[in-house]
Amino acid sequence: MDPRRPIGTRDFGPEEMANRRAAEQVFRKTFESFGYREVATPTFEDLTLFTLKSGPGVVDELYAFKDKGGRDITLRPELTAPVLRFYVNELSRAPKPLKFYYFGNCFRYERPQSGRYREFWQFGTEIIGAASPEADAEVIALAATTLANLGLKDHELRIGHIGVLKGIAAALGLSEDDRIALFRIIDKDKVGEQAADVQALLAKSLPSERVVDVQEFLADLAEPLKPAELAGFADGLARLGDPAKAVEPFVTPALKHLAEVGELLKAAGVTRFVFDLGVVRGLDYYTGMVFEIEAPVLGAEKQVVGGGAYSLAELFGGEPVGSVGFGMGFDRILLALEREQKPASPPPALDVYVMTIGEAARPAAFALARELRGTGLVVATDLMRRKPAKNFDYANSVAARHVVVIGDSELQRRVVALKDMSTGVQEEVGMQDLPGRLRR
Amino acid sequence: MDPRRPIGTRDFGPEEMANRRAAEQVFRKTFESFGYREVATPTFEDLTLFTLKSGPGVVDELYAFKDKGGRDITLRPELTAPVLRFYVNELSRAPKPLKFYYFGNCFRYERPQSGRYREFWQFGTEIIGAASPEADAEVIALAATTLANLGLKDHELRIGHIGVLKGIAAALGLSEDDRIALFRIIDKDKVGEQAADVQALLAKSLPSERVVDVQEFLADLAEPLKPAELAGFADGLARLGDPAKAVEPFVTPALKHLAEVGELLKAAGVTRFVFDLGVVRGLDYYTGMVFEIEAPVLGAEKQVVGGGAYSLAELFGGEPVGSVGFGMGFDRILLALEREQKPASPPPALDVYVMTIGEAARPAAFALARELRGTGLVVATDLMRRKPAKNFDYANSVAARHVVVIGDSELQRRVVALKDMSTGVQEEVGMQDLPGRLRR
Repeated sequence: MDPRRPIGTRDFGPEEMANRRAAEQVFRKTFESFGYREVATPTFEDLTLFTLKSGPGVVDELYAFKDKGGRDITLRPELTAPVLRFYVNELSRAPKPLKFYYFGNCFRYERPQSGRYREFWQFGTEIIGAASPEADAEVIALAATTLANLGLKDHELRIGHIGVLKGIAAALGLSEDDRIALFRIIDKDKVGEQAADVQALLAKSLPSERVVDVQEFLADLAEPLKPAELAGFADGLARLGDPAKAVEPFVTPALKHLAEVGELLKAAGVTRFVFDLGVVRGLDYYTGMVFEIEAPVLGAEKQVVGGGAYSLAELFGGEPVGSVGFGMGFDRILLALEREQKPASPPPALDVYVMTIGEAARPAAFALARELRGTGLVVATDLMRRKPAKNFDYANSVAARHVVVIGDSELQRRVVALKDMSTGVQEEVGMQDLPGRLRR
Repeated sequence: MDPRRPIGTRDFGPEEMANRRAAEQVFRKTFESFGYREVATPTFEDLTLFTLKSGPGVVDELYAFKDKGGRDITLRPELTAPVLRFYVNELSRAPKPLKFYYFGNCFRYERPQSGRYREFWQFGTEIIGAASPEADAEVIALAATTLANLGLKDHELRIGHIGVLKGIAAALGLSEDDRIALFRIIDKDKVGEQAADVQALLAKSLPSERVVDVQEFLADLAEPLKPAELAGFADGLARLGDPAKAVEPFVTPALKHLAEVGELLKAAGVTRFVFDLGVVRGLDYYTGMVFEIEAPVLGAEKQVVGGGAYSLAELFGGEPVGSVGFGMGFDRILLALEREQKPASPPPALDVYVMTIGEAARPAAFALARELRGTGLVVATDLMRRKPAKNFDYANSVAARHVVVIGDSELQRRVVALKDMSTGVQEEVGMQDLPGRLRR
């Protein structure tokens, strides 16, 4: 059997790689303009790193295996845990805040489908050592600015605060399992659709006459709020009945925090966003602000950015440290740009293709190519000793802008034939005049 | 137990990543100036891909494992086989020659030691569809030009031709096992040191009176030849006795080919090289020219480039196609540059650090940062609401060039305090004048 590419992975040809590298540069330049600096970690890690962060159930989604020394290792499914491990291992004494970014491949064993691959790329950032509206607003502004710089037109930014839901769950006295089940429904925006499930969950810990009111409160909570509507959210707490008073100490600081984040975002030029207190983000290590950006053009798998404030270092043996960060799905964002028909960056054209006629001219072609490359031009020479007609065909197929023909007899007069492939005009040019003639 | 970095792998901090990305750009720019275009393949592949290329023994050195679907996969140990698989799968009808380059991480399960890691990075190229002195000379010139552009001073380029040794082995009637054992000794330059082993191997198929002459011939063959000495090599064939006539048809075209490669290299500005007909390169798929570049500053693990002409597509179910390429050890080359004390590129300085005094100034800092970033500056703002003295300490620790202080009262007058951190001079500047003042 001939070897094939593994299922769920991709090969990237030259045009696609040129597009990916061009987009990568936009990410990098934007991140660096905010003062973030790149770090990198290994492609595989101890399995423990991810079970500590996400629980033992995560193993089902991992490329986990034993190495030849019997150690349980795994290809990394994401990059926040590795960066925090690096911080705990080596960087915990550096001046705070640390502002890191990364770009790397991640791996998930899952059913391949549109926009989901078993190997995929993520850009992301972490601020380690700052827990403030400024830190939260900066990472959101950075993600939104990156999408704007890439030219992605249609995207929706939702900002929430996990403290509100955590406070409600605590005040209602929900068990851990019920809380997780309820959050999952809220996170998927299905409080309305799964009303019976929600009622059954709530009935376990609430007097029956309160269930419907609380259910309606949760449905409202999952509705997006315009920035001006944020302050009014607290009014709805009355529906919770007695627990309202217990919830209030969670809600008030969260709303104040979000209001400050919103004001900073506007100052940073980010004006298109909603608050959504139903954003859960699935993972327990979030501590405050959480946010998501979706690109509707992608359909079902439309989330392209996710992040928030979290505390993770203590899980890996470090001191607790306030942190905030996000991951951006590089492949999905490229797909969204493509769907929006953002014109792909043109492949780097070959400036000059050099062909020869006769043996003596062959080293002369190498010497000329070297000289022209020294002026910044992209130059290829004939490597197959083809006849002129075949050489012109090849030069066309690789989109060469100019063809230079060096013949044995012309070589003695130090001249070449120069053909402009867009106009078809061919003329004799002195070799010493070529660099000037070809300058871009 | 706290998670640690896996043995034999590395974390890269901001300074190191900045150096690596700067070097990466030199590689890319040089490769692209020769008309090579980037391709990329998955991080893991079917195990078959590498056992077909290198034999079943290679599994011992691989990070091979079964995925959840029971498929035998492996982290890639090198990138030539994946690129040729990609070619056979999808690109075999493209106009020839294809000129590809790649930059990727590779994995080998081996004892970690200086300059050897379990995850390491390789740059490389493949020309697919050209088998000519021009193609061979171009890849050698490209590798040498890249090292020159990186600023690596001391490196040794040896160019051989596997056809000579293959011809000798065939003419002497060596068994496959004996041939492999003999080639290994020659490849390690140990014909002199392991004279008894060489004699024992030769005695199996040669009349005893010829053994010493052939042994001496092989010892000479492993000596480097200056380009001018190449033509004289054929004179030594007489020592082989009767087999000389059988070897001659292998040697003559190989020497002619290498002479042409040498002439083209000189035209391309590559003048420091030797011919060495004892370069074996270990792998059976090489068909003609083979070359290696060493950086003596690295000591025992000094090879930084290896490559040659080969035929591999047919192993993966494709039509045979003449190819030539090389791999460059990215990590080792960086280590060699460091040992040569090539000054590291300075970390990207933070142009401006913006701090505030008073609440109203906080959004103003975000707005100012946005404006300054728009002019191409790298700007960070205080994310921790620190007092001025602490903020100046932090600005120093991250090497900020300027600090801007926005106070609530100054904000109303649209002025800020601007401090030049190198001179210590602080002055009041109108906000609208800042972009002009800070321009790099």
